Amino acid sequence: MSDLRSKFLEVYQVLKSELLSDPAFEWTDASRQWVEGMLDYNVPGGKLNRGLSVIDSYKLLKEGKELTDDEIFLASALGWCIEWLQAYFLVLDDIMDSSHTRRGQPCWFRIPKVGMIAINDGIILRNQIPRILKKHFRDKKYYVDLLDLFNEVEFQTASGQMIDLITTIEGEKDLSKYSLDLHRRIVQYKTAYYSFYLSVACALLMSGEKLEDHVDVKNILVDMGIYFQVQAVFSEYESKSYEKLIHSIEEHPSTAVQAVLKSFLAKIYKRQK
Amino acid sequence: MSDLRSKFLEVYQVLKSELLSDPAFEWTDASRQWVEGMLDYNVPGGKLNRGLSVIDSYKLLKEGKELTDDEIFLASALGWCIEWLQAYFLVLDDIMDSSHTRRGQPCWFRIPKVGMIAINDGIILRNQIPRILKKHFRDKKYYVDLLDLFNEVEFQTASGQMIDLITTIEGEKDLSKYSLDLHRRIVQYKTAYYSFYLSVACALLMSGEKLEDHVDVKNILVDMGIYFQVQAVFSEYESKSYEKLIHSIEEHPSTAVQAVLKSFLAKIYKRQK
Repeated sequence: MSDLRSKFLEVYQVLKSELLSDPAFEWTDASRQWVEGMLDYNVPGGKLNRGLSVIDSYKLLKEGKELTDDEIFLASALGWCIEWLQAYFLVLDDIMDSSHTRRGQPCWFRIPKVGMIAINDGIILRNQIPRILKKHFRDKKYYVDLLDLFNEVEFQTASGQMIDLITTIEGEKDLSKYSLDLHRRIVQYKTAYYSFYLSVACALLMSGEKLEDHVDVKNILVDMGIYFQVQAVFSEYESKSYEKLIHSIEEHPSTAVQAVLKSFLAKIYKRQK
Repeated sequence: MSDLRSKFLEVYQVLKSELLSDPAFEWTDASRQWVEGMLDYNVPGGKLNRGLSVIDSYKLLKEGKELTDDEIFLASALGWCIEWLQAYFLVLDDIMDSSHTRRGQPCWFRIPKVGMIAINDGIILRNQIPRILKKHFRDKKYYVDLLDLFNEVEFQTASGQMIDLITTIEGEKDLSKYSLDLHRRIVQYKTAYYSFYLSVACALLMSGEKLEDHVDVKNILVDMGIYFQVQAVFSEYESKSYEKLIHSIEEHPSTAVQAVLKSFLAKIYKRQK
């Protein structure tokens, strides 16, 4: 697994150097340096779960058959496309949310010389995805399906982001609009498609499958993505509420009553065990 | 021509209503209203030259043969894709440039309830292009070439915008960096590909041509795009300089000398004739 991760990181270097000499653009030294710095700052610094799971999923679909170097490279390249997509969303979301830090460092647009150029950098990140796909997948039977897949998932993500953004401004007037169903929709479109479905869909395409034959897989993964988000929100709420209750109980003057209340708490907070 | 324009505008209404019920997203009333308002504000208000020239070019390539309704619709849809691309660039560029007005109205991000949501709106505009292409061209032989074309042209435009942006910050220190060659590069990448080449390339693909057989056409159109921009800059300089000279001449005390100078001016300023 750690070997897989280091192989995956090697592919980043290959893709980066290809992009920095992409013949579709006449590079200047300044623009090459800018893009290299921007990529290193924004693309590889996350947990890389989404990217790595393309390789994992592809391996599982091959049912234990050893992958060739070429297969590992291609699965990694698709994994990196997802990481590039993620970087693009994060760079732009951070501006829209006026965030300060991301992955333990200042948000890209907070770097003084960057500022609003970060918007175009987000666009550059996004535009590098089809460059990677064209370079390495143009002759594959599933090339057009890959393009369609990335386009559709990006569309869904942007649409989810839209309802999140417009709900926030409308919410100022009417908080009840932010209903449970709306929350589900935001989570589903804004994160589930690209964080859960996309990796597996890439692996399916590489295995020669047609995505229209796997609508059930898509639905399950999207549901998993929704569950994962709700669980994360609940988990945070749960630990806060647990601490608050423990604090209240320990302020009670009688240790006997404290014991009763704590035994109740232990029964209720199953997930804390 | 005016008939063509009204037909073209009808296609906008069709595409818009299709997008507002795109099954890839679960629309809410609020999001449908938002997107409709955003599209009407940003997409159809320009001169529409780029979009209309897809139909014009396609007609010329058909050498006078009457176009079917279907052909007019498809050429218009591609034309609108270019207008959508333009709207996406303008919405984001206006934020990056801190502009105030665009096409005689406040820039989209200046509308109070919009603000930084405009970034995501730009992304939505961009993402609607592959939705239009998929809906109307998925079964065409040239579908994958259309996707590649739009991807490549968008990449080139964003790259041109990047060198423009980073030159501006570096230019604060060293104006000589903004050399003539750099200016040519910015104009070429930032505007020539999408303003000149893209319309004709769309028309070529619709006519069954392969773009790799028309590299010369591409080069000529890109050169034309560069010339057009340089001419626009020169033209502005020329009329300012003409007015300034006329003003200086008319301040001269002797009308005879004025006449001499004006006759010189008339010989030199050929373009003003």
